[in-house]
Amino acid sequence: MTKHFRKALEHINKQILTLGSMVEERVQIAVEAVRDNDSDLAGQIIAADHEIDAKEVEIEEECLKSLALYQPVAVDLRFIVAVIKINNDLERIGDQAVNIAERVGVTAKRDPFDFFFDYSPMGKKAQDMLKMSLDALIHLDVDLAYKVVALDDEVDNIKVEAYDRIKAALKEHPDKVSYLVNLLLISRHLERLADHATNIAEEVIYLIEGEIVRHGKAELPQREE
Amino acid sequence: MTKHFRKALEHINKQILTLGSMVEERVQIAVEAVRDNDSDLAGQIIAADHEIDAKEVEIEEECLKSLALYQPVAVDLRFIVAVIKINNDLERIGDQAVNIAERVGVTAKRDPFDFFFDYSPMGKKAQDMLKMSLDALIHLDVDLAYKVVALDDEVDNIKVEAYDRIKAALKEHPDKVSYLVNLLLISRHLERLADHATNIAEEVIYLIEGEIVRHGKAELPQREE
Repeated sequence: MTKHFRKALEHINKQILTLGSMVEERVQIAVEAVRDNDSDLAGQIIAADHEIDAKEVEIEEECLKSLALYQPVAVDLRFIVAVIKINNDLERIGDQAVNIAERVGVTAKRDPFDFFFDYSPMGKKAQDMLKMSLDALIHLDVDLAYKVVALDDEVDNIKVEAYDRIKAALKEHPDKVSYLVNLLLISRHLERLADHATNIAEEVIYLIEGEIVRHGKAELPQREE
Repeated sequence: MTKHFRKALEHINKQILTLGSMVEERVQIAVEAVRDNDSDLAGQIIAADHEIDAKEVEIEEECLKSLALYQPVAVDLRFIVAVIKINNDLERIGDQAVNIAERVGVTAKRDPFDFFFDYSPMGKKAQDMLKMSLDALIHLDVDLAYKVVALDDEVDNIKVEAYDRIKAALKEHPDKVSYLVNLLLISRHLERLADHATNIAEEVIYLIEGEIVRHGKAELPQREE
C-alpha cells in the first residue's frame, strides 16, 4: 500500500466516523424530542439535515476518487465499497431522525391526553445499535457487529408492543386518531433506523469474514399487527 | 477496455436487468394482491423472496470481482459502483413487496366491510417508476430518469390522500382498527417502494451527468398527516 493510499484510507475512515457522530447526535435529539413531545427540538433536526446530506455526497466522491486513483484490491477494495454502502445507510438514518421529528411536529400540536407510549427504551436500543455498529467498524470487531444483528429482534418486539397498545388506544379514543397514528409511525421510523444500523453491522461482518450474512438471519415467525 | 472487461460489464448489465425483472414481477403481484385482498397471491411473494436475496448477493460479488480484476476508472468505475447501489435498492424493493404481502395476509383475514382504499393508481405509479428507472439505466436515458424523480411527488400525494381517508374511517369505525391500520401501512410500503425507484433514477442521473442530484430536489411544504 502506498503512503498516499494509506493517507486516503485514513481520511475516509475519519470522514465516515464524523458522519456517524453527526447522525448519532440527531438520533439522540430525535429520541429526546419524542420523550418530551418537543417540537422545537424536532425543528432543529429538520433544519440541519442538509449538513448530513452534504457530508454523504463528499464521502462518496472521496471513495470514488480513491478507487480510481489507487485501484485497490482485496480487503482495501472491500473496505471502500463497504464505506460507500455504510455512508448510504448513515444518510438514511439521518432521514429517519427527520421523519421522527416531523411526527413530533404533529403530535406536539395536538391536545395532550392521558395516553402515551414511552419510546425511550426503543430509542435507546436503536441508538445503542447505531453506536455499536460504528464501533464495530472502527475496531473491526466482528463480535460487536453480531451483537447489533441480534439486538434488531428486540427492537422489533418493542415495535409490536407499541402497535398493540396504540391500536387498543385507537379503539377507545377514535377522536385522537391523528395523534395516535403519528405516535404509531414513530415506532416504524425507529424500527427502520435500527434496520439501517443492522445493515452497517452486516457490512462490517462481510468486511471481516468475507461472507455475506444479510438475508441469512433466521426469520422470526410472522406476527399479526 | 479489454475484451474480458467488456464481457464482464455486459454480464453485470444483464444480471441487474434480470433482478429488475424479478422485482418488477413481485411488485406487480403485490399490487394485485392488495386489489383483490388475496392472501394466496401474497403468500407467493413471501415464499419466493429468497430468490431475490440470492441474486442480489451474486451481483454484488460479481461487481467486486470486476473492480478487483479490471480496476476500471472513470465512467466504468462509476457504472459498477452505481450497479452496487442499484442492486441494493432493487433488493429493498423486493422487501417492500414482501411487506405489502404481509399486510395483505392480515387484511384478508379480517371481516370485509364497506371501507376500501383503492391502491391501484398508487401501485401503478410506483410500478411505472420502477420500470422507467430500469429503462433509464439500460438506455442511459437521463430525461426518463428525471421523469421518475418528478413522479415521486405524485405518489406522495396519493399517500397523503390515503392517510386522510383511512384516518377518517378509523374515527368512524374504531372496531376495525386492525384492518384499517394494515391498510394504512400499505401506503407507507408503496411510498418507500417509489423512493427506492427514485434512488435508482438518481443513480442513473449521476452516472450520466456526473452530478449528484439526490438531496437537491425541492422539498414540498410539509403536510400534517
